[in-house]
Amino acid sequence: MNGHIPEHCGGLNLGIFDTCLITEEIAYGCTGIQTAIEANSLGQMPVIIAGNEAQQKKYLGRMTEEPLMCAYCVTEPGAGSDVAGLKTRAEKKGNEYIINGQKMWITNGGKANWYFLLARTNPDPKAPTGKAFTGFIVDADSPGVQVGRKELNMGQRCSDTRGIVFEDVRVPAENVLLAEGDGFKIAMGAFDKTRPPVAAGAVGLGQRALDEATKYSLERKTFGRVLAEHQAVSFLLAEMAMKVELARMAYQRAAWEVDLGRRNTYYASIAKAFAGDIANQVASDAVQIFGGNGFNSDYPVEKLMRDAKIYQVRGTRQHGRVV
Amino acid sequence: MNGHIPEHCGGLNLGIFDTCLITEEIAYGCTGIQTAIEANSLGQMPVIIAGNEAQQKKYLGRMTEEPLMCAYCVTEPGAGSDVAGLKTRAEKKGNEYIINGQKMWITNGGKANWYFLLARTNPDPKAPTGKAFTGFIVDADSPGVQVGRKELNMGQRCSDTRGIVFEDVRVPAENVLLAEGDGFKIAMGAFDKTRPPVAAGAVGLGQRALDEATKYSLERKTFGRVLAEHQAVSFLLAEMAMKVELARMAYQRAAWEVDLGRRNTYYASIAKAFAGDIANQVASDAVQIFGGNGFNSDYPVEKLMRDAKIYQVRGTRQHGRVV
Amino acid sequence: MNGHIPEHCGGLNLGIFDTCLITEEIAYGCTGIQTAIEANSLGQMPVIIAGNEAQQKKYLGRMTEEPLMCAYCVTEPGAGSDVAGLKTRAEKKGNEYIINGQKMWITNGGKANWYFLLARTNPDPKAPTGKAFTGFIVDADSPGVQVGRKELNMGQRCSDTRGIVFEDVRVPAENVLLAEGDGFKIAMGAFDKTRPPVAAGAVGLGQRALDEATKYSLERKTFGRVLAEHQAVSFLLAEMAMKVELARMAYQRAAWEVDLGRRNTYYASIAKAFAGDIANQVASDAVQIFGGNGFNSDYPVEKLMRDAKIYQVRGTRQHGRVV
Amino acid sequence: MNGHIPEHCGGLNLGIFDTCLITEEIAYGCTGIQTAIEANSLGQMPVIIAGNEAQQKKYLGRMTEEPLMCAYCVTEPGAGSDVAGLKTRAEKKGNEYIINGQKMWITNGGKANWYFLLARTNPDPKAPTGKAFTGFIVDADSPGVQVGRKELNMGQRCSDTRGIVFEDVRVPAENVLLAEGDGFKIAMGAFDKTRPPVAAGAVGLGQRALDEATKYSLERKTFGRVLAEHQAVSFLLAEMAMKVELARMAYQRAAWEVDLGRRNTYYASIAKAFAGDIANQVASDAVQIFGGNGFNSDYPVEKLMRDAKIYQVRGTRQHGRVV
Repeated sequence: MNGHIPEHCGGLNLGIFDTCLITEEIAYGCTGIQTAIEANSLGQMPVIIAGNEAQQKKYLGRMTEEPLMCAYCVTEPGAGSDVAGLKTRAEKKGNEYIINGQKMWITNGGKANWYFLLARTNPDPKAPTGKAFTGFIVDADSPGVQVGRKELNMGQRCSDTRGIVFEDVRVPAENVLLAEGDGFKIAMGAFDKTRPPVAAGAVGLGQRALDEATKYSLERKTFGRVLAEHQAVSFLLAEMAMKVELARMAYQRAAWEVDLGRRNTYYASIAKAFAGDIANQVASDAVQIFGGNGFNSDYPVEKLMRDAKIYQVRGTRQHGRVV
Repeated sequence: MNGHIPEHCGGLNLGIFDTCLITEEIAYGCTGIQTAIEANSLGQMPVIIAGNEAQQKKYLGRMTEEPLMCAYCVTEPGAGSDVAGLKTRAEKKGNEYIINGQKMWITNGGKANWYFLLARTNPDPKAPTGKAFTGFIVDADSPGVQVGRKELNMGQRCSDTRGIVFEDVRVPAENVLLAEGDGFKIAMGAFDKTRPPVAAGAVGLGQRALDEATKYSLERKTFGRVLAEHQAVSFLLAEMAMKVELARMAYQRAAWEVDLGRRNTYYASIAKAFAGDIANQVASDAVQIFGGNGFNSDYPVEKLMRDAKIYQVRGTRQHGRVV
Repeated sequence: MNGHIPEHCGGLNLGIFDTCLITEEIAYGCTGIQTAIEANSLGQMPVIIAGNEAQQKKYLGRMTEEPLMCAYCVTEPGAGSDVAGLKTRAEKKGNEYIINGQKMWITNGGKANWYFLLARTNPDPKAPTGKAFTGFIVDADSPGVQVGRKELNMGQRCSDTRGIVFEDVRVPAENVLLAEGDGFKIAMGAFDKTRPPVAAGAVGLGQRALDEATKYSLERKTFGRVLAEHQAVSFLLAEMAMKVELARMAYQRAAWEVDLGRRNTYYASIAKAFAGDIANQVASDAVQIFGGNGFNSDYPVEKLMRDAKIYQVRGTRQHGRVV
Repeated sequence: MNGHIPEHCGGLNLGIFDTCLITEEIAYGCTGIQTAIEANSLGQMPVIIAGNEAQQKKYLGRMTEEPLMCAYCVTEPGAGSDVAGLKTRAEKKGNEYIINGQKMWITNGGKANWYFLLARTNPDPKAPTGKAFTGFIVDADSPGVQVGRKELNMGQRCSDTRGIVFEDVRVPAENVLLAEGDGFKIAMGAFDKTRPPVAAGAVGLGQRALDEATKYSLERKTFGRVLAEHQAVSFLLAEMAMKVELARMAYQRAAWEVDLGRRNTYYASIAKAFAGDIANQVASDAVQIFGGNGFNSDYPVEKLMRDAKIYQVRGTRQHGRVV
């Protein structure tokens, strides 16, 4: 957790490749926990790539001292991948900004100590997207921050996802990342570093589904022999293993590229889209191998199938498959 | 409900085609409810196809008078599709049978007034499957019937699914369907009439997912236009519609064949396997079209995706894809 | 062949359902032959649905007397499904039209006795598509008709497909179908009746691939038993059978609807798109079951896979999947 | 060509990774040529991994001096992947072996200067597979070698594939690789080094199909804009690119592992199976994007689709999907 925080703030300064390996292992255990932990990295990343030394020391430093969470506040009810449609606005008044708007699907929303928040600072609707938004660090205990109820989702239920309303929230100008108008660039820049771990999480889930299905196939008997001795099952397991392995190569490549300082957007998009797809296929196949038991919450794969879908929904968005 | 009960027992004597149309509509509303209702038909079917007049009057007749449920008790912890592996046994003692064993995944298990139960009456493990089992009607309030806790499943949560233990349960010989040793034939014979409605249920779910996704696609805007105007979404909707329509043709064909008195096993297997597959694909696609909202239980498609999987698990078994 | 020709012209006046059954059987033998025969129906259909009695007697009547072919001349190098983009034009001069333009992929192009031809009669590019085109019957031996070389295609190689250039071709006004400006409506109207047979052709090919693969699976041995006893092969055969059967239901439904006089565009589109897809999948699976032999032209499935692709290319276009 | 030949025989001694990169590029041009060249490596590999210095100097050395071909003679009419079923036998007579049998699908069969040949030397049908076969180097001009006609295949038509009959062919004992009974181990051992290049060939074909489809999508207009601006086409292109990239990662990983001296069977199987599948999907999608033109041999993708299937047939065999 918090592996990316620079050493001068007391952190480990790990690269993306290293944290991806950690992420896969945590996701193998529970992707709900993994998503909550990953959301910390997502919230921190704008501060890591664009924060000045004072901002980093103050907001990243404290996270190495006590178990604090933060959150990435970009999505709104009417705008997910379509950042240009964001309506939360920040108006400058003296040395402060006054923020008003509504954010949604904020992971760690009810637990965060502070938020990275993207708001429109140029009210002109014709202003170019790349110049109209500004990134802020917002203390979660600022007056006017109203945290909504915990959302009830299909899976990853231990991850705390909420809507947050910002009503006349005052943020000091020193909490602006880089400069007014630089927010879009910062928010997007974070993705190249946060997509590979999302893919790694999906791979961890896929590996778990594969392992559970394999184990069950070696124990459960039908028609006089264990499932794994039925060719239809063993071939399906081989197919599942192939997909998990390919998705692992994909996130490793994407992580390696960005750690070398190269633009990895192409590889990161492939990793996220493919890993999200196969996590769903593999989890669904695992349920199939468990048969009726797979539908029951006493067995481990029911949870995996419910947890997996969010990776596809998110993977698809950035890959642009649906919207 | 109970549409198949013959007129001489006070029922409607509907054919399979008619009840399939009803089933699709109920499933459009909720497949959990539909499965509970359908389980009544499944429990009744052996009595309809193999019961004598006294058995029919007694056990079917009462179901037209008050809102009673019944259940089909075949599956066991160690044997789903593999009927030959059933371990529940019935021993004849005088004019009664003594039943011992454990059944599992019994829909309506905790609500049933009586059960159709399949038990081994020939203890010789080499006895042919087609001769070794006998079908019984068992009153649910018989001493020794122990109903387990309601199972927590991925979906169809309003359907009451339980394990049931039979411990020295005494059943009068007059409750044997046809004769000792005829049970396997009766249990299998019921499937040709009950598979088409299961497929119809899956189609109802698929149609609902399609309709919800279509409606949302006409309302929700991204990048300045409604989702349905993005070709990737409209083509996906067309694909979903095609699948639902094909599955509907398949169950209608299977139902029509059996209503004409023709062997429909081939068509019924196709209908059940295909409808189960496409219900899952269409429900998952609908969640995808809803994006992040689709993962949330405030929106209608999250439930559909969880409900759908059981149709594939069941469809696959009889289609033989996994086992 | 020529089954749709009305009785008053000496034909059989068969419905679409009947001809679909015939088409499936011919396609089972060879889809190249079937496409050539089917192209006759496509060429005749505008005359059947829109021709006056004299036109029908003259152009349909002769086809019942001797073995003549005709062709449907709509597609152009720059416009396939996009009819509005057609550039062939017809100018009225006295009691004749002068036709200039270039048609492409014309099945029976080099064998036809006459063509149904669609040409733009309203030169105003803003004229509505539904009014700008006119349908003509053109004798193939008219001066100015230049037939191109036979195209070399991946499959269906016995089907004669060519480009045709029309240079100052004079057509008497009495050869206009309905009236000037009615061409688009006529050309489109033909599709509702010609799509179901195209789907039936694809089903015939799929059934052939399934039968060849089944036969081979029962003869060829590997690892000590016939292929069909390997579960991976038997499950694949079941999947193939399911797809062929579903596609058959789809074309039968589409044919039945239009024979009843109901609008069948929805069902015809489903049938054509789905049958085109599964013919390719099933033919490719059949090659897979034949292994290395499947790639060789001494075995029957290599041809089937090459022949199948045109059904998907055409199916997709009208279904709108690609364009 | 011949890149693997050791330096002491005048070769380049390239690793698998290097030759895979070369293979991908040649396959981009023509996979028929690439397969012919690759067949040389396949034939040489047993000599490289198991030949003694004299054998290597004699049979590999000459290939660096003049443009000679060799061939890998294992497959028989009744046994492809099922090596235990091979029937070609070699009997020792004095200092020679007498070889009788029939080989099939031998690439370079009519062009080879010498063959690697696998034959049964232990006639006892109960002898373990791992001990019953011996690997030989056979000069192509040996009396009794009868080369069959060139096979007509779906694609890769410039690759020379033939059946070869061996009738009382005398081979000196010094041409045995390692020792009598070591043949199976040698033949299988070659696969770990030859599967990655096969996968690389499939990737080269996939990349070509993607590039041709992309180029066409940027030129061809329908409905007033280029194909690539239709979302259904651009999303399909993205999907194709993702698959090609994943398959490339897979063969690179498999090649890298074996170059490091690690057992790569798992990765090599994944690479070959996945690359074979996606080459077919991507080539078929490319034809789809070309529409009717894609079916025609004047356009480049028709050939690609025909060439691709052999990669799936072969990939599947070793992956064990069909047999």
